Amino acid sequence: MHTVFVEFAFGPVAGKVHEALKPELQAAPSERSRIELRQDGGLLTLFIEAEDIISLRAALNTWLRLIKIAGEMLNARNTI
Amino acid sequence: MHTVFVEFAFGPVAGKVHEALKPELQAAPSERSRIELRQDGGLLTLFIEAEDIISLRAALNTWLRLIKIAGEMLNARNTI
Repeated sequence: MHTVFVEFAFGPVAGKVHEALKPELQAAPSERSRIELRQDGGLLTLFIEAEDIISLRAALNTWLRLIKIAGEMLNARNTI
Repeated sequence: MHTVFVEFAFGPVAGKVHEALKPELQAAPSERSRIELRQDGGLLTLFIEAEDIISLRAALNTWLRLIKIAGEMLNARNTI
């Protein structure tokens, strides 16, 4: 079993990114990986556990993409 | 600054995977991310620190690919 912790230093938008992505946790549960998303102040933490490196990488890329876009949208909104 | 910890449960081949990949740490140091690779018994730990999610993802994908191949080669060798 391989595990990944990713800590994103989002600062003030961390809570909003967390709220935006919570529904995605229920969207498509995979049998080969387990995902957790937590927020503590300005830190958003992604936890992934997977049987093999291929599933780890697939889940990680999906979530890095989602988190990147959510963060960019919120930061873009603050500059309008 | 975003950080990633990846723990690979490689068991008996963890040391050999670590030895095989250590030279890669010096290969192409990037200004936008910092990489560490440690081995403790059967666990191989990858640590990545990066300024932004794009650099984090680039470094992560590179290293996940390297680690996956090194692990597969060693496991394949044990089955010959």
